[in-house]
Amino acid sequence: MLPFTKSPTFRWGFYFSPGDSPFARGLVFHQGFHLSPAVLPFNRGVSFSSFAGLKFRPSPFMKMGSSNNYSSITNNSQNNDRNKSPTAIMLMNLGGPSTLDGVEDFLTRLFSDPDLIPIPFQKYVAPIIAKRRTPKIKEQYAKIGGGSPILSWTQKQGSALEKLMDEISPLTAPHKTYIAFRYAPPLTEDTIIQMKKDGVKRAIAFTQYPQYSCSTTGSSLNELWRKSEIVDPEGSIQWSIIDRWPTHPGLIEAFTKHIEKSLLTYPKEVRDKVILLFSAHSLPMVVVNRGDPYTSEVAATVHAVMERLNFLNPYRLVWQSQVGPQPWQGPQTRDAILGFGEKGENNILLIPIAFTSDHIETLFELDLEYAHEAEKAGITGLKRVESLNDDPIFINSMANIVKDHLEKAKSGGFFSNQYLLRCPKCKKDSCQKSRDFFASF
Amino acid sequence: MLPFTKSPTFRWGFYFSPGDSPFARGLVFHQGFHLSPAVLPFNRGVSFSSFAGLKFRPSPFMKMGSSNNYSSITNNSQNNDRNKSPTAIMLMNLGGPSTLDGVEDFLTRLFSDPDLIPIPFQKYVAPIIAKRRTPKIKEQYAKIGGGSPILSWTQKQGSALEKLMDEISPLTAPHKTYIAFRYAPPLTEDTIIQMKKDGVKRAIAFTQYPQYSCSTTGSSLNELWRKSEIVDPEGSIQWSIIDRWPTHPGLIEAFTKHIEKSLLTYPKEVRDKVILLFSAHSLPMVVVNRGDPYTSEVAATVHAVMERLNFLNPYRLVWQSQVGPQPWQGPQTRDAILGFGEKGENNILLIPIAFTSDHIETLFELDLEYAHEAEKAGITGLKRVESLNDDPIFINSMANIVKDHLEKAKSGGFFSNQYLLRCPKCKKDSCQKSRDFFASF
Repeated sequence: MLPFTKSPTFRWGFYFSPGDSPFARGLVFHQGFHLSPAVLPFNRGVSFSSFAGLKFRPSPFMKMGSSNNYSSITNNSQNNDRNKSPTAIMLMNLGGPSTLDGVEDFLTRLFSDPDLIPIPFQKYVAPIIAKRRTPKIKEQYAKIGGGSPILSWTQKQGSALEKLMDEISPLTAPHKTYIAFRYAPPLTEDTIIQMKKDGVKRAIAFTQYPQYSCSTTGSSLNELWRKSEIVDPEGSIQWSIIDRWPTHPGLIEAFTKHIEKSLLTYPKEVRDKVILLFSAHSLPMVVVNRGDPYTSEVAATVHAVMERLNFLNPYRLVWQSQVGPQPWQGPQTRDAILGFGEKGENNILLIPIAFTSDHIETLFELDLEYAHEAEKAGITGLKRVESLNDDPIFINSMANIVKDHLEKAKSGGFFSNQYLLRCPKCKKDSCQKSRDFFASF
Repeated sequence: MLPFTKSPTFRWGFYFSPGDSPFARGLVFHQGFHLSPAVLPFNRGVSFSSFAGLKFRPSPFMKMGSSNNYSSITNNSQNNDRNKSPTAIMLMNLGGPSTLDGVEDFLTRLFSDPDLIPIPFQKYVAPIIAKRRTPKIKEQYAKIGGGSPILSWTQKQGSALEKLMDEISPLTAPHKTYIAFRYAPPLTEDTIIQMKKDGVKRAIAFTQYPQYSCSTTGSSLNELWRKSEIVDPEGSIQWSIIDRWPTHPGLIEAFTKHIEKSLLTYPKEVRDKVILLFSAHSLPMVVVNRGDPYTSEVAATVHAVMERLNFLNPYRLVWQSQVGPQPWQGPQTRDAILGFGEKGENNILLIPIAFTSDHIETLFELDLEYAHEAEKAGITGLKRVESLNDDPIFINSMANIVKDHLEKAKSGGFFSNQYLLRCPKCKKDSCQKSRDFFASF
């Protein structure tokens, strides 16, 4: 049964999106429920500095591909040969079409996700919406190089993470990273099957969204529960969860370094006047008002970065990718850029703060769409900081998070103290069942 | 000329409010402008622990009154006798009617504030709305003891702060605290006049709202600029501003201690399952979307408190006092309490996180209104943490903030690097003029 049949506050709207947005555009229906909560007690105790000294080995080149075969799911580590069951680290993200041929499948899966966009008769309606949207989205992916780079970045991150983990946490070695995307291969189900083939008994579901939203991490975890029930009904894999890490010192350090590097590209005399414009994907207010913790956690990340920067520059947190007639969390990134421009502010540094790797919202929406509008408005000092991608500082922090987690989560059934608290207005059974599942280990 | 005549996005709605709310209810008109920005570089460098050891002297009893005479503006310090011009600390807040007779005047001023609620023909319409609202609001104040305790708490805080400052910052002594409320005596204009009589040459405008909103601190600063132009046209007082302090370690410590104390009142076996429900006064989305930094800064406070508590309990940030048909920042406090109750959650600890002293939103809205609804819904474990009021830890942190500020602000013209950046969609001339004024010293 589709979850929306239980909603007392059914609404709908018309949305329209550039691509691998988790809140993509098209005909969508909003309801008075979505999802649930959690936070990072386990991430806080370890200072980044104690980890920053580790030697980082550059990752080998990973072949980029859109198929859900073995090579795209795992990274080729020398640990594959060991006899010991590996500690699995599943990197969860929304994913994106690696090639233009993958766009329609990607959109179909996206519109089929009731955790992201509840649509009546979703199974039947999603493919129709996806088909209609495909040409435009293909065009956008064509403009950013013919596909999403998210698989390629995640493979690089995974490969480096695997090696780092073996070095810094020998007791839990060998480590093996897997990728589970929500809307593009490698998909959750295939990844679980591969993990079973590899003899995995202990796995960490590591969300690649630093801030928890029911539409992103919540959706990935619900999918992991659903597919585990099907392809691992005997519960052979013990799961624990890294469900959020919005202010992990390593993450903050990585963002800070990227901002400082970008600020150096401005003339010295204007450098400390540059407006730092932190931009995150927005959420519909119906999701925010249900109790989704995402907006608060994004604000926490921004504050931590500004604190690390000693609040030297003026700044704002703004929200991008809003669409359709429904209200979304604002202020909007586009409005803010143009509004500052109207006040004579010319130097604006955009900082994507809620995704760590490049994707269509950075490469198309910020770099092409908004940059073009700013240029038309006469704003010449708009720049964007580089995404974290395969920055060694960032990958070190990922390893730090996993190591810290493993020290606390001796077995499965470990997650933040926020995770079990569902959103106050959530009506979705799946959000309770997935929590029961992860708490059962 | 009223500012709304410049707005291209004029809207209106019907609002209704319990009392000294900064976003009070009644017939209001929303526009596409309001206010502006800023953040606390100066508060971050000093750790609270370096200050916590200071001896705190209990403040003498301060007579509570609603008149705008000398005794309600200043605190009787022994420093009055010294010949040296005092360093003035102006404690700015919205204020509240100390007696039931003051309710109508209070509401009239509140509805007359274009920074809070822009209304067409405001000068004429405000008294009418205020008169209509007075009986209901009087009733609410009657239920919380016959008036707002905010003057009394601010007097106690000011008296203690004055003494502490003389001890810890002898170079800038004598210090003299003044109170400037926005909607109740002592009013800004009278306070400036008194400061001039006292021979003040150097003053700090110290907002008592930890998080900056254009509707609160912004309104108080605009008023300070407007009235200074009238009653101190020669600019005899040099001003600097403490415009925000959302994550000052002392503030966070005070909140944390109050939460820990309240948690001890729950049975041990449920203590770490109690939901910490941080509640702040909401803002209309039209203000949020204009670029008001308040919601982000409140989220930063919450995150800092949770970090200090090691994220031991589940939590949410929710927003209270929404009214009328316009969208406000959510999720709503009331909905969250009842929503958690429906899910079988019984132990909920309310934490007012955006005001430091008790006021009608804590004493009436949370303690009477919401508590009654929760009781009807069968929730027996709803409690509220005590407000900071005259807690020595809190007052120590106030002194710490002022001392730190004085060390950096050798003269006037000092404020956070956020303050000068107006909101991207702000259209108000007054927001620019007040910034020009404070930057001129």
